[in-house]
Amino acid sequence: MTVLTSLTDGYRAAVFGASGGIGAALVRQLADDPRCARIHAGSRRAAAPSGKTTPFTFDLTDEASIAAAAAVAGADGPLDLVFVATGILHGQGLSPEKTLRTLDSERLLASYRINAVGPALIAKHWLPLLARDRKAVFAALSARVGSIGDNRTGGWHGYRASKAALNQLIRTCAIEVARRSPLAVCAALHPGTVDTALSEPFQGNVAPGKLFSPDTSAGHLLRVIDGLGPGDSGGLFAWDGAAIPY
Amino acid sequence: MTVLTSLTDGYRAAVFGASGGIGAALVRQLADDPRCARIHAGSRRAAAPSGKTTPFTFDLTDEASIAAAAAVAGADGPLDLVFVATGILHGQGLSPEKTLRTLDSERLLASYRINAVGPALIAKHWLPLLARDRKAVFAALSARVGSIGDNRTGGWHGYRASKAALNQLIRTCAIEVARRSPLAVCAALHPGTVDTALSEPFQGNVAPGKLFSPDTSAGHLLRVIDGLGPGDSGGLFAWDGAAIPY
Repeated sequence: MTVLTSLTDGYRAAVFGASGGIGAALVRQLADDPRCARIHAGSRRAAAPSGKTTPFTFDLTDEASIAAAAAVAGADGPLDLVFVATGILHGQGLSPEKTLRTLDSERLLASYRINAVGPALIAKHWLPLLARDRKAVFAALSARVGSIGDNRTGGWHGYRASKAALNQLIRTCAIEVARRSPLAVCAALHPGTVDTALSEPFQGNVAPGKLFSPDTSAGHLLRVIDGLGPGDSGGLFAWDGAAIPY
Repeated sequence: MTVLTSLTDGYRAAVFGASGGIGAALVRQLADDPRCARIHAGSRRAAAPSGKTTPFTFDLTDEASIAAAAAVAGADGPLDLVFVATGILHGQGLSPEKTLRTLDSERLLASYRINAVGPALIAKHWLPLLARDRKAVFAALSARVGSIGDNRTGGWHGYRASKAALNQLIRTCAIEVARRSPLAVCAALHPGTVDTALSEPFQGNVAPGKLFSPDTSAGHLLRVIDGLGPGDSGGLFAWDGAAIPY
């Protein structure tokens, strides 16, 4: 069981992408943490409330839905954790590019809309809900392949570009939030390769023991969050807590 | 006069954004370089040929126009330099954000389309035209504020994110091109603050002597290009040649 000891007892969390592999595992583990009092669990389709978990619906491409959910969650009290567990690598017409020859502007824009613009809209409406008198964390799923400095193999142009943009947006948010909430942490997280629909076509080259189950991954990510302080805000961190260059 | 001594005598260049402040200055200086044999000068509106300068029209949001221009330029012979001097910071409904509260998804997408997708489409169709038996350079105007690691002041969310994405796309292109053209260089360039329409509303805080004329800037950028080698490919460089962290 993961216990977030660095968050206040009775902390409130929100998870976007609660029906995805990692998102659902995060909601489960937060529900199991005795220190957690409330989980706002957002997904595209309506779900039933369960114990501490209050579902809400949102669409990453519909800002009004993100704003409306913020109004409801905010009325319940300040948040200690907002986790954006959304993202797209393939599907809905997208497929990671192996070469420049297959770049397509509409697909590049679709990837950016989901992987960068969506989390930025969530930050716009949900960062103001973070508690200001204690540690509070805004975390978003990024990816090591979004690191420019770590890019050695090329390919996946659209996904890489959208995640680099996300990393920049997270850092930009961190600077803005620090002015009013010096204890806040904004972080981009690399989960490693997790056995979800997102990675399914690309699991062939994963080293033994490095394909994580969603539950293992959620445990990793919550432990990383538990260890982050304000000095880490704006950074990109791997599942084991190691900082990744931008 | 700027002479690109590292490019072959009789080199051929292409400039996208040839009617912009920096682009027009680049075309003028390339035309003055006795080693330059041909400049393909691309802008949105048709212009008349002049000496070594062959104009073409293109629209960054219209891939077919970029592909058609590549077919014409490619028939003239391999290129030694492709310079993408396009970009948008404000105008056409865009204005750099001072705070998250003003983020707008359509404006984020419009900025990405111009600053990241457009140069990527140019790379798709024009990188194959680079000479493979000698140094050849693909350069694009980026910006220091696109650096994630160098981001200390926040704000300008959409512009920063689009330029971080551009830097990632340039690095991804560099890796792909190196496989077939080991002498090629792909680089993102920070011109400093240049006295053009793009920077006009933001020149108030520029230190004395650091607001460059377009001609001074073009000279800086061509000198940086002249000094780059294959080991620099994929990097982000300032007007004085200094590497900038991603």
